[in-house]
Amino acid sequence: MAPSAHRRKTYDALLDAALGLTAQGRGFASLSLREVTRTAGVVPTAFYRHFESMDELGLALVDCSAGALRTLMHEARSAELDGNHLVRRSVDTFFDFVAQHAALFLFLVREQTGGSSAVRDALAVVIRLFIADLATDLARAPLLRHVATADLNLLAELITNTVSAAIPGFLGAGENQRQAVRNRVEKQLRIILLGAAQWQASPSQKPA
Amino acid sequence: MAPSAHRRKTYDALLDAALGLTAQGRGFASLSLREVTRTAGVVPTAFYRHFESMDELGLALVDCSAGALRTLMHEARSAELDGNHLVRRSVDTFFDFVAQHAALFLFLVREQTGGSSAVRDALAVVIRLFIADLATDLARAPLLRHVATADLNLLAELITNTVSAAIPGFLGAGENQRQAVRNRVEKQLRIILLGAAQWQASPSQKPA
Repeated sequence: MAPSAHRRKTYDALLDAALGLTAQGRGFASLSLREVTRTAGVVPTAFYRHFESMDELGLALVDCSAGALRTLMHEARSAELDGNHLVRRSVDTFFDFVAQHAALFLFLVREQTGGSSAVRDALAVVIRLFIADLATDLARAPLLRHVATADLNLLAELITNTVSAAIPGFLGAGENQRQAVRNRVEKQLRIILLGAAQWQASPSQKPA
Repeated sequence: MAPSAHRRKTYDALLDAALGLTAQGRGFASLSLREVTRTAGVVPTAFYRHFESMDELGLALVDCSAGALRTLMHEARSAELDGNHLVRRSVDTFFDFVAQHAALFLFLVREQTGGSSAVRDALAVVIRLFIADLATDLARAPLLRHVATADLNLLAELITNTVSAAIPGFLGAGENQRQAVRNRVEKQLRIILLGAAQWQASPSQKPA
């Protein structure tokens, strides 16, 4: 094995070890460097060739798939489809990705409110990037042209929260029930977009 | 102090000790009975006068305010107000309660995806009760009379998720920013209810 391939293998083993330990219900903040290296089957000094600290490993987990998922979601939303098919395609793209990275998403869901503020803050930044991407894509939708920029952002946040809230149920569901979770989220997003399309036109925007 | 008052004081001290320890970023599942009793300033045998296990203490934390909050929310939604004022009143009632029980809600938010499956499952049941209450109240709204019962439930879930998603930001925000969090949630709920009012009428309900 070439040195770079070996290096990559150790890196992946460390990330997998941390995911494996947190999947057992341990908070990431409670993991020690020594446990992670023992689980990964490497010596502690090998850890420092990749990360300065456990927090840095946590940040690597937060970042490792964010770029790929952002690209996939933007592509899904850029397809030439009507609104309802775009919603379905976006929901499917997202949950296909979650299914392929189940251990990672279990980690992300838990650490969003977990004990490591470094990981929590990094994840909050990534989620804000997802929301900003979505707000930009929503701004191009003809039906939402009338919605103010600030409201597009809270709309994108609402959609992101709705999809995120379904992740634990999706991961915990059997193969048969996962489609039901997707259908439920799809309906919820369509209710939101129906409301958004009515938003400015409605006199209810300004409460008395 | 009467024996019952002393008993109640120990009970509260144990709950507060667990909240205090988890507020430091520790997962509830990682707390030991000994740590909790030491923090509460009571001997371990006193613990067993109240709880059979740490899980039972966790369940007590999940249940301790659920009934009171369910009653408050139902009352807020039963006021004779128009839709927008009902939304504002509900949002205010909920976040006033969260502000008064900040340590408890920090615990609940974290343990929703935490390491104790007993606590996680109990919290899921409580959230389902909140969703069922809300669905029942929504069923009475004239604007939603056309919405099918199954869809009322996913609508109530969507609303509950939207409010829940704002709790960490609300708790982390300074006094000045908390009003901004409330306003944001209020707008998001109004978008959802606008969409729900259009839901059955829309041909987009059945995708081709």
